[in-house]
Amino acid sequence: MIEDKNPQRTPVENLGEFGLIDFITKNFEITHSSTVTGIGDDAAVLNHAKSTVVTTDMLVEGVHFDLSYAPLKHLGYKAIMVNLSDVYAMNAVATQVTVSIAISNRFPVEAVKELYEGIEMACKTYNVDLIGGDTTASRSGLVISVTAIGEQDADKIVRRKGAADGDLLVVSGDIGAAYMGLQILEREKAVFKANPQNQPDIDAYSYLLERQLKPEARKDIPKLLEELDVLPTSMIDLSDGLSSEIIHLCKHSDVGITIYEDKIPLDPTVITACEEFNLDSTTIALSGGEDYELLFTVKQEDFPKIKANPSLSIIGHVVDASLGSNLVTRGGEQIPIRAMGWNSFQE
Amino acid sequence: MIEDKNPQRTPVENLGEFGLIDFITKNFEITHSSTVTGIGDDAAVLNHAKSTVVTTDMLVEGVHFDLSYAPLKHLGYKAIMVNLSDVYAMNAVATQVTVSIAISNRFPVEAVKELYEGIEMACKTYNVDLIGGDTTASRSGLVISVTAIGEQDADKIVRRKGAADGDLLVVSGDIGAAYMGLQILEREKAVFKANPQNQPDIDAYSYLLERQLKPEARKDIPKLLEELDVLPTSMIDLSDGLSSEIIHLCKHSDVGITIYEDKIPLDPTVITACEEFNLDSTTIALSGGEDYELLFTVKQEDFPKIKANPSLSIIGHVVDASLGSNLVTRGGEQIPIRAMGWNSFQE
Repeated sequence: MIEDKNPQRTPVENLGEFGLIDFITKNFEITHSSTVTGIGDDAAVLNHAKSTVVTTDMLVEGVHFDLSYAPLKHLGYKAIMVNLSDVYAMNAVATQVTVSIAISNRFPVEAVKELYEGIEMACKTYNVDLIGGDTTASRSGLVISVTAIGEQDADKIVRRKGAADGDLLVVSGDIGAAYMGLQILEREKAVFKANPQNQPDIDAYSYLLERQLKPEARKDIPKLLEELDVLPTSMIDLSDGLSSEIIHLCKHSDVGITIYEDKIPLDPTVITACEEFNLDSTTIALSGGEDYELLFTVKQEDFPKIKANPSLSIIGHVVDASLGSNLVTRGGEQIPIRAMGWNSFQE
Repeated sequence: MIEDKNPQRTPVENLGEFGLIDFITKNFEITHSSTVTGIGDDAAVLNHAKSTVVTTDMLVEGVHFDLSYAPLKHLGYKAIMVNLSDVYAMNAVATQVTVSIAISNRFPVEAVKELYEGIEMACKTYNVDLIGGDTTASRSGLVISVTAIGEQDADKIVRRKGAADGDLLVVSGDIGAAYMGLQILEREKAVFKANPQNQPDIDAYSYLLERQLKPEARKDIPKLLEELDVLPTSMIDLSDGLSSEIIHLCKHSDVGITIYEDKIPLDPTVITACEEFNLDSTTIALSGGEDYELLFTVKQEDFPKIKANPSLSIIGHVVDASLGSNLVTRGGEQIPIRAMGWNSFQE
């Protein structure tokens, strides 16, 4: 929210589409042997020895992000993360991405550069090749559309379908922090609007803000599971909220799920922030969304391999479909889980 | 431009994102054995025995299309075509697509349905599987982002690079019609604005309008070339205009190209329309864009296989890079070819 008094603003039309593409892609390197041809032809050429997984997600200004507080570099990074997360949710290794952007003419070359710095950082950190994309004008806001590609042996790919009665439900990391980060950003935006001289005091919330603005996809989890010799029976990533992802797993696997309130992993700062905002932390964990953790089921016999791992929490188990999906509260009460996750079509 | 007095308008939020996805994808069928898992998981799973080609293009309302004259069904069809065209330009077989859309809330379910009817028709006609996508709200116009995937033996993939001195330059079909179709649509829009009672008389232009509103990608050309036992030395699709694609081929192959004005294939209606609009038909052919024909080079020894084919025109030949790219006019004059193709960043 601190503006540079003399920012350099080069209009994109000075470069043209091809000049812009050259400019933004010059730092990207191809590192995967499966990338035969990257950017620069009518299409990229890949050579995957294993099965290929493909997923795509679109981020729209004013719907998925607010440029008044989301730095462009973080936004570029996040756009890659939300897509890689879906690749990891298939238990696959992410290998390539394509990135298409539509930008309004208020977007100078410098802003595009910042966005692509984030994309580049994500590609380098997660070892994926940028192999193509499209760059176009937009009559209004910024739109980012990413397609992520990965590979895995056919028999190691994990789907939403496959959970069976008695399996354990496991989640990586902790949840609810990204949603609370958004609450803090929205509050500070309102404060800033009321009094632009006010300096926001957000140090105490740095974990929450990072989870919202620069999330990390769980590349490490498929690797960890392989090391632990655990193949999940089903898996999904947490993008829309725990409750809605549990319902997806149940629907695809034709099972029910019981989770326990006291098992849900929450970071202490989430609990503190929930108290401050007078919100129930369990509700936030269930409905918050954007955690990009992995939610998966494993066979009971894998319990010893999972139980002591600091990255993993067993939060419940799979039951017969007739029992539905329920949360057992700290008080022992059983409450049906409803999908209350985020929906871009609701105001 | 004729409005239904009582159109049914179901708000998208009535269905929600998942309801909408179920609604729009229910008619799509998986036909390729290489599609192991389609829509409905975190990612699709593919099993390509050959090399995989991947391409992506984004269409933005107000930049690439105008909903005041582009029927949604045609727009859905065209969004698939512009992507498949890039797959065919690699001499590959298109097998899968993902489609992401961002829609404003003025877009009812019925409009989304119409758009997907066009996408479905394209997928069926061109035998590609819809395997994924994203559906989101937009704060303003419609955005469509498609990723197309295809496959081909590694040694049969044709790139922009590969043209050599002496090769013949060949184009499929005829060019300039899509641009003239756009001119007619723009003129009729202006007439309609001035006098809404005026009934446009566009029968004479049906070929031009179809080329603009519902183009067909040249799936048949890679197949034809295989039957003729011709493997092009380089290839590109005509999206931005003949001149700009010639320059791409020259740059990637490090060659020059000479083309002959009298060899450029023009449909008679393009010539008529150019006379009516007082435009030079050669300029339109060079700079018009959106033809989605294939432009490729073949070895001279393949001349007998190509020459009599009604789908193919030999319009020039490859020369040394030092000679640059030139058009030889009907009068024998040599004019340098400059990229004058369409650029979304110019007004």
